[in-house]
Amino acid sequence: MEDEKSLAMLLEAFTARNELKILVHGGGRTATDVAGRLGLETKMVGGRRVTDKDMIDVVTMVYGGLVNKRVVARLQALGCNALGLTGADIDIIRSVRRSPEPIDFGYVGDVEAVRCERVKMLLEAGITPVFAPLTHDGKGQMLNTNADTIASEVAKAMASCYDVTLAYCFEHPGVLQDAANPDSVIARIDRHTFAALAEDGTVSGGMLPKIENCLRAVEAGVSRVVITNVAGLASLSGTIVEADNI
Amino acid sequence: MEDEKSLAMLLEAFTARNELKILVHGGGRTATDVAGRLGLETKMVGGRRVTDKDMIDVVTMVYGGLVNKRVVARLQALGCNALGLTGADIDIIRSVRRSPEPIDFGYVGDVEAVRCERVKMLLEAGITPVFAPLTHDGKGQMLNTNADTIASEVAKAMASCYDVTLAYCFEHPGVLQDAANPDSVIARIDRHTFAALAEDGTVSGGMLPKIENCLRAVEAGVSRVVITNVAGLASLSGTIVEADNI
Repeated sequence: MEDEKSLAMLLEAFTARNELKILVHGGGRTATDVAGRLGLETKMVGGRRVTDKDMIDVVTMVYGGLVNKRVVARLQALGCNALGLTGADIDIIRSVRRSPEPIDFGYVGDVEAVRCERVKMLLEAGITPVFAPLTHDGKGQMLNTNADTIASEVAKAMASCYDVTLAYCFEHPGVLQDAANPDSVIARIDRHTFAALAEDGTVSGGMLPKIENCLRAVEAGVSRVVITNVAGLASLSGTIVEADNI
Repeated sequence: MEDEKSLAMLLEAFTARNELKILVHGGGRTATDVAGRLGLETKMVGGRRVTDKDMIDVVTMVYGGLVNKRVVARLQALGCNALGLTGADIDIIRSVRRSPEPIDFGYVGDVEAVRCERVKMLLEAGITPVFAPLTHDGKGQMLNTNADTIASEVAKAMASCYDVTLAYCFEHPGVLQDAANPDSVIARIDRHTFAALAEDGTVSGGMLPKIENCLRAVEAGVSRVVITNVAGLASLSGTIVEADNI
């Protein structure tokens, strides 16, 4: 979302999909940049942002304001009737602040409930929700929540009333067997093959929780999960993550 | 909205009003503060912010993110089903960028259209819209738009289908005859008395466009316009701005 050319392609491909749809965006690089300009140091633990009092303000500004409204305004220009949302808006995603043990991530929330009937109401009214990676605790506090997690939690919730496809869009055309070779996309991953890929190191770092999110989504009733890039969004080609064949 | 004690009182008084309602907030002081911390100078002309490329990013962050989501999360905690909106969201307020002549205010928008049927849909669904002072041009660009203007434009648009009361909440209990005496609230102002108050200097500076907005609102069908402070919000006491008796 943070590279102009990719963003333009993404928003066009997204708008072109002629179905009920939801967009979830991130904004981590912009948040780190704005924090730095404000003299705040970004601390990451295990790829996750430590969100202290100053940092929750920064991510609320950047994710909920700058990135979200930029995306919404551009989708509107493309004819997509976008509505920017955080979890606080119409109480649509409520979370609980993560325990400070073993690591205190600060104002970080783990999703507790997605109001799928409210998301459905918006979709049926012709509205395209655009979620920023922010939730709230129901007591007045905004919480930083990983975008991949919001995507899988919303997809799982919507699976109770729709046939849901969840597409994760990142820089590669799928999960690669060989990181240096974009033609080495792994066609299918299930929990069985994931364990092997994790063990031999083919999949590592930030891809581990991403694929774990995908597996949980299909196991919870999401019909189809695809890991792809902007170019693969139109045809939903890439790596398909599927539940184990029993 | 930017003083903690006043904000808490305002949100409680607002939540307590048992009717369909809309909140419009500002955030200028916070925007100036954040801009300063980012090394950007705030330029004002006639009380209005000059909004260049960097400043539209700052106000989009501060108004659309920080202030809006803080208000929404706190209203939710009070049991008010708030939804944060900018004009770009569901294309609810579209504006045109102001002409660079005689003064180039940059990315500042003058309201062109409020989608009252969409606001109505939200209200009838039990949702309380919370507007940030931002609109869009329909071509992908966010625009900075004065909060008082958004309040009066939304009130005028809603007057086509509702009996609308527009309350401007500021630091004094109403328009004061004597700025040093909070007991000198002027009970009623119409266009006739406004001209006299402007001429003798009783009303000046930022109050002039505020009262002008109020007069235009009552002239366009808003039933009642009140200028008050947080303490007056429950009883809607303060200065009533009314259309001329014909």
